[in-house]
Amino acid sequence: MHEIDTVRAVRWQDDALHLLDQRVLPHEVSYLVLQDFRATADAIRDMVVRGAPAIGITAAYGMALAAREFGQHVDWRERVQAAADVLNAARPTAVNLAWAIARQNRILDAIENGEQSFAALLAEAQRIASEDVEANRRMGQAGARFIPADSGVLTHCNTGSLATGGYGTALGIIRAAVEQGRKVQVYADETRPWWQGARLTAWELQQDGIPVNLVVDSAAASLMAAGRIQSVVVGADRIAANGDTANKIGTYGLAVLARYHGIPFIVAAPTSTIDFATPTGADIHIEERPAEEITQVRGVQLAPLGTQAVNPAFDVTPAELITAIVTERGVVESPTAARMQQLIET
Amino acid sequence: MHEIDTVRAVRWQDDALHLLDQRVLPHEVSYLVLQDFRATADAIRDMVVRGAPAIGITAAYGMALAAREFGQHVDWRERVQAAADVLNAARPTAVNLAWAIARQNRILDAIENGEQSFAALLAEAQRIASEDVEANRRMGQAGARFIPADSGVLTHCNTGSLATGGYGTALGIIRAAVEQGRKVQVYADETRPWWQGARLTAWELQQDGIPVNLVVDSAAASLMAAGRIQSVVVGADRIAANGDTANKIGTYGLAVLARYHGIPFIVAAPTSTIDFATPTGADIHIEERPAEEITQVRGVQLAPLGTQAVNPAFDVTPAELITAIVTERGVVESPTAARMQQLIET
Repeated sequence: MHEIDTVRAVRWQDDALHLLDQRVLPHEVSYLVLQDFRATADAIRDMVVRGAPAIGITAAYGMALAAREFGQHVDWRERVQAAADVLNAARPTAVNLAWAIARQNRILDAIENGEQSFAALLAEAQRIASEDVEANRRMGQAGARFIPADSGVLTHCNTGSLATGGYGTALGIIRAAVEQGRKVQVYADETRPWWQGARLTAWELQQDGIPVNLVVDSAAASLMAAGRIQSVVVGADRIAANGDTANKIGTYGLAVLARYHGIPFIVAAPTSTIDFATPTGADIHIEERPAEEITQVRGVQLAPLGTQAVNPAFDVTPAELITAIVTERGVVESPTAARMQQLIET
Repeated sequence: MHEIDTVRAVRWQDDALHLLDQRVLPHEVSYLVLQDFRATADAIRDMVVRGAPAIGITAAYGMALAAREFGQHVDWRERVQAAADVLNAARPTAVNLAWAIARQNRILDAIENGEQSFAALLAEAQRIASEDVEANRRMGQAGARFIPADSGVLTHCNTGSLATGGYGTALGIIRAAVEQGRKVQVYADETRPWWQGARLTAWELQQDGIPVNLVVDSAAASLMAAGRIQSVVVGADRIAANGDTANKIGTYGLAVLARYHGIPFIVAAPTSTIDFATPTGADIHIEERPAEEITQVRGVQLAPLGTQAVNPAFDVTPAELITAIVTERGVVESPTAARMQQLIET
């Protein structure tokens, strides 16, 4: 079978954390080699790595690096926990970050000797990474049925191998449909202001030989009206307990448009993205990013100097606009708080 | 009173047509000086000038330039008409282009001597330009009531002085609201792929001291959900006889979103934009532009080489999503074919 999942954005190799620098893709394929947790937090903040699951995996490795640095200290536990706080603060919206750190903290709690901490945290980070790929493959199997044969599917941002441990969430569903032999026209929003669609999704699908049509974000509505889109699949940065979903800016608008055109709107995310401590989308903090991300393009001033901009990085899609949330533990159709709860209790 | 309309994109000066080169705004403010109709057609095609009314005015001057060139020839009429065909073919969607040329053709029909043709066509072009500014001011007066005090208004593309003879259509409505002393938060979509919002609307409003917040196109939905937008005003490239409106890609999506959020959606355009020969939006030809406009940004490759793109320049908003069409002859609320017809009969 044709290999359709060749890219890995986060790798542990030669005793260091290797991050594919997603800021310079697709022109350069270069890995940053990180040896400590501070550089790891910086890489998360600076968006060397992005995508909620990939951020979580990276932070888990960051804690392992902190353990390697501090394991011999008497106050090793405090120091590793302080490092965890630094990593946790690197990006505010993706819940997987806090989730991965909480998982590492449970490992940490069970360790009595600082010298064991590095090996234990490294092993757990590697488990988190490989479980994520496995979860994505299960999501793909569960979600592929939402993509009919000979259909057009629209996706937003990058939710593929670059955003996860591998295979991808929403892009994993598209991969699974392709693996099942279905002929699919993939439409990728370019995804302003960070161009994840133009730079990352287009590149990643090119690596795996899956054809893609790039479109400007604002073209989605007319593609839907023209009957070229039969499903919309997106990822998630944080899902509230009731199914409300925070994701890349533009996602909410696509959900409204999909509803208007009678097109299924599918969210794909591992259960680690669900934040049961957050009751609804109204409780999700939305990261506001600098105006320069809009007024400049790749460092070049585009708008006149002094132009103000409003730049929310994410938006919230209410659960009632979501046809189904696809997770590794099953599919929640027409999500509600009760159905979301049921998902993790079964 | 503060001067709020200082920019002119199309000027006749020193026996030549001066076009503000909108491709290099806002970094350079430079005028191309055109002496013949071929260069004028090229300038329309290459988007030196854009915006349906401004394109019409430019083409009208282009015919005057053709008359100056051919007026002494025996077959002057045929040559000027051939020039009109070249100008007419420069852009396919804006109906004002054909409208302005038809108006010049009527002047041409009334002339018996080629030597008179230049002066007559130049005078008519200048009339078209000044009538356009006057029409825009009337639209502004008629449409300002759709923008409440202390409200947020969202606009798309550039529909201001740069897109018209002056003052603007949708931006003219915003100007009129500001002139009437209303406090208005203007949100301007950056408008991919040509950045008319980021480059042109932001620049034009800056010239006139009207504050603006730039947003990525896909942020509109979340601004609406947050209650920051009380009206959406856009221009039009062609309005069908039933009120269906072709405009910059992204307009249709905004109309769907406005309807979903209960926000008035206003189209502002002179009656020259209405094409009564086109029954509905389904009959409007939509210009498809090159993939490179999406895969490259300002000449720099952004997506990986070989990436395919779908790049429709316009979309069609059905009349049922339009709260009102504001013209210089009056406002058509909830447009239908009968109400559109009534507009020009009164």
